[in-house]
Amino acid sequence: MSFYNFATNLSKTRVYLDNAATTRVDSQVFEVMKPYFLEKYGVASSEFGHTQGIEAKDALENSRAVIAKRLSAQPGEIVFTSGGTESNNLAIKGIAYALKNKGNRIITSKIEHHSVINACRALEKKDFEIIYLDVDIEGFVNLEQLEEMINSKTILVSIQQANQEIGTIQELDKIGDICRRKGVIFHTDAAQSFTKVPLSVKNLNVDLISLTAHKIHGPKGIGALYIKKGTKIEKMIEGGFNEFNLRAGTENIPGAVGFSKAVEIANEEQIEYVRKLRHKLIKGIFSKVPHCQLNGSSEKRLPNNVNISFHFAEGESILLHLDMKGIAVTTGSACFSRSLEPSHVLMAMGFTHELAHGSVRYSLSKFNTEEEIDYTIEATAEVVESLRKISPLGKKEG
Amino acid sequence: MSFYNFATNLSKTRVYLDNAATTRVDSQVFEVMKPYFLEKYGVASSEFGHTQGIEAKDALENSRAVIAKRLSAQPGEIVFTSGGTESNNLAIKGIAYALKNKGNRIITSKIEHHSVINACRALEKKDFEIIYLDVDIEGFVNLEQLEEMINSKTILVSIQQANQEIGTIQELDKIGDICRRKGVIFHTDAAQSFTKVPLSVKNLNVDLISLTAHKIHGPKGIGALYIKKGTKIEKMIEGGFNEFNLRAGTENIPGAVGFSKAVEIANEEQIEYVRKLRHKLIKGIFSKVPHCQLNGSSEKRLPNNVNISFHFAEGESILLHLDMKGIAVTTGSACFSRSLEPSHVLMAMGFTHELAHGSVRYSLSKFNTEEEIDYTIEATAEVVESLRKISPLGKKEG
Repeated sequence: MSFYNFATNLSKTRVYLDNAATTRVDSQVFEVMKPYFLEKYGVASSEFGHTQGIEAKDALENSRAVIAKRLSAQPGEIVFTSGGTESNNLAIKGIAYALKNKGNRIITSKIEHHSVINACRALEKKDFEIIYLDVDIEGFVNLEQLEEMINSKTILVSIQQANQEIGTIQELDKIGDICRRKGVIFHTDAAQSFTKVPLSVKNLNVDLISLTAHKIHGPKGIGALYIKKGTKIEKMIEGGFNEFNLRAGTENIPGAVGFSKAVEIANEEQIEYVRKLRHKLIKGIFSKVPHCQLNGSSEKRLPNNVNISFHFAEGESILLHLDMKGIAVTTGSACFSRSLEPSHVLMAMGFTHELAHGSVRYSLSKFNTEEEIDYTIEATAEVVESLRKISPLGKKEG
Repeated sequence: MSFYNFATNLSKTRVYLDNAATTRVDSQVFEVMKPYFLEKYGVASSEFGHTQGIEAKDALENSRAVIAKRLSAQPGEIVFTSGGTESNNLAIKGIAYALKNKGNRIITSKIEHHSVINACRALEKKDFEIIYLDVDIEGFVNLEQLEEMINSKTILVSIQQANQEIGTIQELDKIGDICRRKGVIFHTDAAQSFTKVPLSVKNLNVDLISLTAHKIHGPKGIGALYIKKGTKIEKMIEGGFNEFNLRAGTENIPGAVGFSKAVEIANEEQIEYVRKLRHKLIKGIFSKVPHCQLNGSSEKRLPNNVNISFHFAEGESILLHLDMKGIAVTTGSACFSRSLEPSHVLMAMGFTHELAHGSVRYSLSKFNTEEEIDYTIEATAEVVESLRKISPLGKKEG
């Protein structure tokens, strides 16, 4: 079967293996949200006095309790936000300003999500000192360096649970222990990993956790921040007393209800299913495509993440050709793909520009099928082979 | 018909005249949002490279264009946010920090929404000087005082288009002229008034406008900020380059699509209908209930706002009794009703605590009917009469 026949035969196939794979709202999530648009449209802050407001408030608090329970936290420790990006900003800026009289050093890593990195960069302009920790070739943060860098001025350590591009899962238990021992607040961005990787505030020394709904088939526009009881934090969005006076604004009830449903239905069976697809995809590509490498850790890895660098081919070209075959994947950093800059994550891991540009990320979800994975393996092999033949980087084989 | 019979007969009636009246999502809005949850769930920032991302990006940009057009603005001047509260925070803090080398004085009024007042209060702690302008008995800002207070250190004036409690519509044209003449940035919070009161950046000297969807039968959790081209503003939520690099975070596409549909279907005919209901409600209550007063301006008033102080009766008691009759209204400041503090708006207008506590707000929408208004007039008359009989404040008549 030729390159083009293959594409034509399956031109209507849509295989979502980009970040949209996880942003497809589960129909169960959508169903529970629906009445909060059309029927139960009360405003939660009006609960004092009339029944419709009480309905709204109950829905909000039930959603909060579900999310808290998943972390073994208390409902009063969960603050709803507009998403993971806002949660990261609130955590980092909120702690920075609340503790600025105590110190001005914040420690993070070079491979964090842009919302963490850029919140830190903004603070650098306001007299905070930010330490960006190195990572090894698999993306693990250097723990010795972390320990060395914590001085008396250090107020916050912010290290993600799992990476957005390469899926590497950090050793949060060790990081938490170091922070606890040194008396420093510890924030983790769990936007990529929540419900996919175990996370409990009972087993971990952690003070703040960023969460988002749209990575687990919940709606876009809603997220949360776990704030351990007693943690001093400065409000970022001012106004009413909503969200324990930590985040103002009319509560997004349909969003909160949808988020909690997404959490409720996320289960181990699905994760295992996705993990098997991931294994199949990696194994398939490696058996059919020479000269490629898996980026990130092969063991401590998000169950739904595959990130492969194809030598002698450009990621952008692979992405475009896979799209023509009805397969959506990502290259570089998803949020920044238009910038054409190489991934800051891969660069921090010591990649060359060329290898970083050749990386393709496949994000899997429970909606993907074995058939889609088979098709994707075939398509990737064909696309990479074709590109290598015409590319100036190409290695002509045979 | 006795008090209780009346309540029993119509106990299933639900008449929404509280802030939820406007948060009921229009079914047309819901229908256009629906596919963006379940089918077109792409991420807008992935538009570079594959078709699903392009669909998402197109939906976002079409929504932006609809909202821009309604203000006679350019699409590039509209930044989506999570709601009016975030928009007000971004506008006020964003301008304050961007222009802090130019000056530190910000002028607002005593009757602004809490998101404006409290963003200003937060800036007071960061060495900004805030002037809170007085208002007259109808809630109009003192324009002479505004002009006097603008000095060489003044960087921003923030005055709402219409008030959240009393509905008074400010003279934005005059305020805009003063700001332009003095060379000061002018922000207006139009969360309450957008699509209900004319607003065009072509006819008005205005630099920033806060908007929200859930006040016009759009979804909760989405809003926007108009930022005039060339206006220097500091980002509040850091991360990706989303929203012209002014507001990071995965774009809430269903929210944006729903917001723009709500704007599209908001028309003059509906406004006229609501205005007639408002007139009927005011006229009805005044003909049946002695010793009450309309708060705010009778002429320059939001078409959907009725705010009445009932002498010798408490607003909270009226609210609870109306709720038992199936009618939802608001008292004091909606967002703050749990605090039991008298409305800061009415206090600024020179009300006594007693009169401020006796105020009830009826918020009307296109979903209300003439029959509901008739019922509400009767119910209000009965409730107020009964309460006056038993209240220590009560004036026994006859």
